[in-house]
Amino acid sequence: MTSQAMPSPAAAGDPLIDSYRRVRTQTEALAETLAVEDMVVQSMPDVSPTKWHLGHTSWFFEFSILAGFADYRVFDPDFEYLHNSYYNSIGPQYPRPRRGLLTRPTVAEVHRYRRHVDEQLIRHLEQGDLDEAGRALVELGMHHEQQHQELLLMDIKHVLFQNPLYPAFRERQRSSSESPAELSWSDFSGGEHRIGADLGGAFIYDNEAPRHRVLLEPYRLANRLISNGEYLDFIRDGGYGEANLWLSDGWALVQAEGWRAPLYWVERDDEWFEFTLAGLEPLDPAAPVSHVSLYEADAYASWAGARLATEAEWEVAAARQAPDGNYLDLDCLRPLPESRPGLRQLYGDAWEWTRSAYQPYPGFRPAPGALGEYNGKFMCNQMVLRGGCCFTPEGHTRATYRNFYYPHQRWIVTGIRLAADGR
Amino acid sequence: MTSQAMPSPAAAGDPLIDSYRRVRTQTEALAETLAVEDMVVQSMPDVSPTKWHLGHTSWFFEFSILAGFADYRVFDPDFEYLHNSYYNSIGPQYPRPRRGLLTRPTVAEVHRYRRHVDEQLIRHLEQGDLDEAGRALVELGMHHEQQHQELLLMDIKHVLFQNPLYPAFRERQRSSSESPAELSWSDFSGGEHRIGADLGGAFIYDNEAPRHRVLLEPYRLANRLISNGEYLDFIRDGGYGEANLWLSDGWALVQAEGWRAPLYWVERDDEWFEFTLAGLEPLDPAAPVSHVSLYEADAYASWAGARLATEAEWEVAAARQAPDGNYLDLDCLRPLPESRPGLRQLYGDAWEWTRSAYQPYPGFRPAPGALGEYNGKFMCNQMVLRGGCCFTPEGHTRATYRNFYYPHQRWIVTGIRLAADGR
Amino acid sequence: MTSQAMPSPAAAGDPLIDSYRRVRTQTEALAETLAVEDMVVQSMPDVSPTKWHLGHTSWFFEFSILAGFADYRVFDPDFEYLHNSYYNSIGPQYPRPRRGLLTRPTVAEVHRYRRHVDEQLIRHLEQGDLDEAGRALVELGMHHEQQHQELLLMDIKHVLFQNPLYPAFRERQRSSSESPAELSWSDFSGGEHRIGADLGGAFIYDNEAPRHRVLLEPYRLANRLISNGEYLDFIRDGGYGEANLWLSDGWALVQAEGWRAPLYWVERDDEWFEFTLAGLEPLDPAAPVSHVSLYEADAYASWAGARLATEAEWEVAAARQAPDGNYLDLDCLRPLPESRPGLRQLYGDAWEWTRSAYQPYPGFRPAPGALGEYNGKFMCNQMVLRGGCCFTPEGHTRATYRNFYYPHQRWIVTGIRLAADGR
Amino acid sequence: MTSQAMPSPAAAGDPLIDSYRRVRTQTEALAETLAVEDMVVQSMPDVSPTKWHLGHTSWFFEFSILAGFADYRVFDPDFEYLHNSYYNSIGPQYPRPRRGLLTRPTVAEVHRYRRHVDEQLIRHLEQGDLDEAGRALVELGMHHEQQHQELLLMDIKHVLFQNPLYPAFRERQRSSSESPAELSWSDFSGGEHRIGADLGGAFIYDNEAPRHRVLLEPYRLANRLISNGEYLDFIRDGGYGEANLWLSDGWALVQAEGWRAPLYWVERDDEWFEFTLAGLEPLDPAAPVSHVSLYEADAYASWAGARLATEAEWEVAAARQAPDGNYLDLDCLRPLPESRPGLRQLYGDAWEWTRSAYQPYPGFRPAPGALGEYNGKFMCNQMVLRGGCCFTPEGHTRATYRNFYYPHQRWIVTGIRLAADGR
Repeated sequence: MTSQAMPSPAAAGDPLIDSYRRVRTQTEALAETLAVEDMVVQSMPDVSPTKWHLGHTSWFFEFSILAGFADYRVFDPDFEYLHNSYYNSIGPQYPRPRRGLLTRPTVAEVHRYRRHVDEQLIRHLEQGDLDEAGRALVELGMHHEQQHQELLLMDIKHVLFQNPLYPAFRERQRSSSESPAELSWSDFSGGEHRIGADLGGAFIYDNEAPRHRVLLEPYRLANRLISNGEYLDFIRDGGYGEANLWLSDGWALVQAEGWRAPLYWVERDDEWFEFTLAGLEPLDPAAPVSHVSLYEADAYASWAGARLATEAEWEVAAARQAPDGNYLDLDCLRPLPESRPGLRQLYGDAWEWTRSAYQPYPGFRPAPGALGEYNGKFMCNQMVLRGGCCFTPEGHTRATYRNFYYPHQRWIVTGIRLAADGR
Repeated sequence: MTSQAMPSPAAAGDPLIDSYRRVRTQTEALAETLAVEDMVVQSMPDVSPTKWHLGHTSWFFEFSILAGFADYRVFDPDFEYLHNSYYNSIGPQYPRPRRGLLTRPTVAEVHRYRRHVDEQLIRHLEQGDLDEAGRALVELGMHHEQQHQELLLMDIKHVLFQNPLYPAFRERQRSSSESPAELSWSDFSGGEHRIGADLGGAFIYDNEAPRHRVLLEPYRLANRLISNGEYLDFIRDGGYGEANLWLSDGWALVQAEGWRAPLYWVERDDEWFEFTLAGLEPLDPAAPVSHVSLYEADAYASWAGARLATEAEWEVAAARQAPDGNYLDLDCLRPLPESRPGLRQLYGDAWEWTRSAYQPYPGFRPAPGALGEYNGKFMCNQMVLRGGCCFTPEGHTRATYRNFYYPHQRWIVTGIRLAADGR
Repeated sequence: MTSQAMPSPAAAGDPLIDSYRRVRTQTEALAETLAVEDMVVQSMPDVSPTKWHLGHTSWFFEFSILAGFADYRVFDPDFEYLHNSYYNSIGPQYPRPRRGLLTRPTVAEVHRYRRHVDEQLIRHLEQGDLDEAGRALVELGMHHEQQHQELLLMDIKHVLFQNPLYPAFRERQRSSSESPAELSWSDFSGGEHRIGADLGGAFIYDNEAPRHRVLLEPYRLANRLISNGEYLDFIRDGGYGEANLWLSDGWALVQAEGWRAPLYWVERDDEWFEFTLAGLEPLDPAAPVSHVSLYEADAYASWAGARLATEAEWEVAAARQAPDGNYLDLDCLRPLPESRPGLRQLYGDAWEWTRSAYQPYPGFRPAPGALGEYNGKFMCNQMVLRGGCCFTPEGHTRATYRNFYYPHQRWIVTGIRLAADGR
Repeated sequence: MTSQAMPSPAAAGDPLIDSYRRVRTQTEALAETLAVEDMVVQSMPDVSPTKWHLGHTSWFFEFSILAGFADYRVFDPDFEYLHNSYYNSIGPQYPRPRRGLLTRPTVAEVHRYRRHVDEQLIRHLEQGDLDEAGRALVELGMHHEQQHQELLLMDIKHVLFQNPLYPAFRERQRSSSESPAELSWSDFSGGEHRIGADLGGAFIYDNEAPRHRVLLEPYRLANRLISNGEYLDFIRDGGYGEANLWLSDGWALVQAEGWRAPLYWVERDDEWFEFTLAGLEPLDPAAPVSHVSLYEADAYASWAGARLATEAEWEVAAARQAPDGNYLDLDCLRPLPESRPGLRQLYGDAWEWTRSAYQPYPGFRPAPGALGEYNGKFMCNQMVLRGGCCFTPEGHTRATYRNFYYPHQRWIVTGIRLAADGR
């Protein structure tokens, strides 16, 4: 990064600059093993091409911060339209399902765009041009970029999976085939608890606020994520053919799509394989099952005589632990078996579907302006997931973090943790 | 009904028989003004033909009660497949979107089927053949049939609307064009409340149970439903063109479907008309707006600087009132203006969209067997509506009653009540 | 018909009146065994409800003849929009795929409409009000109505087939299970021939004109239609799974639709049945195969080492025979086996797919005005069929008659005659 | 090409090797100005990515020739599945609409594949290993590759057009804005003519055979292609809104797609622009209109009081001229105005839609085996185009050449020549 060529003593100690550089570099590192061809394709409307992620995350800094400086020279005026994701307040957007039709800007041009934004932003930071609100936007932009690091990996996995050659994103870095710990329950008492977080402290997204009271009945959580082997038992017991286990919309989808296993499972000659970022591999029965929809998670729980947790149940349990786990920084790029005793895997490995619809907390108010579109307008039809996954950058998630997806979506690294009513 | 030919002294005083007869007769009365042609058509997959409603409600009694008697002579073995709505436990179902392709059984045959079921069921009731569980199923079947009375009216309204002749279901019975009361707020205190109801008392659906505690923050409810005139202000202010007012999925639908007014509004030469069960009529600005989606209700509330209520907020307020209102039995078949002061229209007129996703109450457990499919499996992707409407039979709804539809659906008689955070 | 109440001596001998009455009565006779419910349903966009056929054929006389009389009282001004099929010159049309959503006018109203049109038209004929052009339009309207008699039967067969009860249109009238004659070839010499017909003589449609020369190479035609038994051999030989037998678009359709037999064949416990207007019956191997697409006809011919005939080849052969055959008037309502020697079944039984695209003859010119829309604008993407079928009214077809459908359509009574190059 | 490193004296004079090298080099030259990103995208199912064209044309030589040599080392066994276009005889195919999802093989790998095939094929040619049939396959493969040169340009034009930046494929090479010659007619006499060609002489595709007699009535052809300016008159006269000018299927498409101009026309502030391979340019009224569907060509002809020619009419006229014109080798990459008198532009500039459906000539027989799939199975639903266009390699087309596309397709360089009945 050429910005290293112009260090500013004044800002040398500004930790925001270091963090900014780290996040931006990490994004580019993720694309390093990819061919240019890989970075262009959009395999379904939910997916964005890698080069779009690289551009859009830069655009976020440009429109929300740099564009506010009177002397800012826009890199390319057409980029606003091309890289705006869903901010109607900013302007119209190139249609999302057509992102894979854009061959230009090329990957090299997008990298030039990134350098341009980095230079400008770091210069302003070094010069101390940003007030607190501006610095908060930089921080938001970094968290935003971390989200796109995870999306980039989810998306490229889906892109590579379309290819019958099953190309690898990266050679397998590390592996583990320990047996998972035996499934057991942790009990939690009911009563009044507090969840959520208030704005104004450490960084949170607006959808985590405000912190508020909830009433819980006594409940139990399983000690770890459900494994591939356990999920295979569900399949072999006819789970995908037993209507009574399924939510109505889920059953309709199973029929319409012919689902009979998680998204990346491939059956060949009666043996199951799983597509991973290291290519197609024999299914590891010890590893957590992943890439299941909410419907599959819910049906599995019904089959097992249990249920999914609510997001409040999950948070109350998770708040007692440090948010450590198998994240992107471990470089495994896959959920790992957990053999240790105790309540584990709340963080990392796989996002846990909850039975909670994604709705505003009492007293929630979206921010004014474009940033108000960040979270609030999606509070309908989606379900909350908690805890992060093996593609999530370390430090990005926390106990109060609310992720959300539609119940049918499976290209996320999702997993299943069982819950039950307590006594 | 020929069953009147065989009165049983023993059961003469059985109020269940009277109620049963009343409900069944009311259903048939709804179809009286229809031509046979009207009763065949399915105008969209959500809609069922009138004759299917007539048959399905009879099938419900047949499969859940009569089929349990060893000597029961099935009316027609093919009817089970044709009239099963969504009970996978019972067997496969003729595909819902194809119900309008069935010309047979004819309307006359369906009426014979109804008489057959009535005779058999009343005979068993008169003979005292039903134990408590059986009698509870009769009661469930009656409530089920009342739901279909409402559906029948919603559906036939949609069917008749497809016709450019805009035929009337029935001549206008009664009208009112009083001005609505001025919009004002009722305040409610926060804290711990109880909502829901327990099984084992007066009839409830399983989704209303169990009664449980909720925590509320202070809130306010508007005194009445939003009127057509007020909604017209929203339209004239560009509400359908202002992305920031809308939930993301709602905005996408507005664009895709070209929505610019509630479902049954028709614009001709710059004047608005509304299709009603009495045909096309000039829009009454005093009457409550109806046939809006959750998205439109939510966007209206945002435009008005307010929000929709949660279902708990609604229930706490409604529990203090008797469930009286403009129901089907008043025979208006349309929402009426409300000019009286105070918190009004919680019951009847129009179902009120809440901001609450339809989810299980803590401790909810679906019933075993086919009846377990009644409510639980729909607890995903839908939103709760409260209070009943002008098509709902009197006595069918109550403070704890949870209705649910998808947020995009508009052929229900839905309305808008504003809510806000209290102080 | 009340017009019988006012006979006009002058016109008593007008054969056009008799023909008109005969055609109109025949249409109504076809609907006699139907329930009102049957007459409302549209089972796919290609199909029209029976009551629409009854109305549209009347509208044709009304718009093209009666509307020209200054004193004509329109029966209902809305009917023009509802009953216009595809005449853009007349005005906009209620969308064809939505015809099945119209419950009004009722069947009874449509019958009143028919009587109104009949009275008015016959009165004008009796009074001698129509000039030659007007009388030609009456004749055209009668041929048009005959086409709709055939369509009505095709359509109602498709409607009844949607019902798992497989209701019968009419009890089986007559049957035959003679073995078909052995398959053999008739040879025809090449050279210059004439096909088509000129306007101005006996009634023809404009697409049959002008009569013109064609050059043919020597060719052969099979003596009869291919039987169900022979087609079953093709199926059992894997014909539906052998890509090389199929036209490319046909093969794509076979895959997409999962075709494995003609439209109305139903397999139950390894036995084949065929849905007919008399309900579901065991497949008759001797009867001609019917309800196949052009793709299936072409694939069968390839499998048999033959090909389909061009329309010119067919016409040159057919012109030597009287147009007699198993038509509607025989009241069989199904193709019959042909056991007699010689070139047979050119007329009646089943329309024969040709390999000729439906295109204008050299020098063809569509009529001016609305009638110009009758045939010309369809001369793209469709294929020519020849000879008529068991649903075609006697006297409607002839050697020069050109029927046309899209190659994928199967709800027509279509059959297969093999052809081959001669020597 | 490394094969130049091993020249074989024996074959030094073999002109087939030179032609082969020339064709293969020309393909690669077309891709030279493209970014890697451009070569991956598939903008609609009809379009293939550039890198697929590069691979598929090599696969054609590999499967049809090289695979027949016992010692042939397949470059990559997975490539057969990936690069098979539609040859069911060879095996299953990766689904065509998903070609744009394949990021691997990369462009570099495809180039290695090309070099591998070239080395092997040239070695066998140099060694004289190929018999006459084999050499005929090489010739077929070269013609096949020329077709893909044209497709590659059609396809990349469509890909680049999706981008609101309207990137250029190549800077404008040459331009001309001469006025076109005045529109006039050439007369042709009727009677018996011969069209088509016989196999066994100079190279032809099987669909051009056999040469056979046709009967024509006297006819006229316009002297040149219709210009953009003339087509603009049609638009300004309301041509896209006048149903009576259109074939029925065309009119439906105009409504459904909202067509109001040729594919690549873009209106900005009431001025028309045209997207070309040099980017977006002001519309040149003198140049031939291009990128119209058959429906638009037919509607234009109706509006002009004329018609399109049959393929026989076109061929009889064209056979009298040398097949010279504005082809790919002129490097204009756009149709040019024609100002010279006389019958012009029959070859090059733009493919001319005929009114002839693509059907087999009398006596046509597809070749046995995979090559039989080349043309015959497409002889349904498509229309014949004649003459070649500015993307067609010189020497590829001829008077008997039959191109074919679906009537709705517009991404081909198509144009309009008027015809009329003669006297």
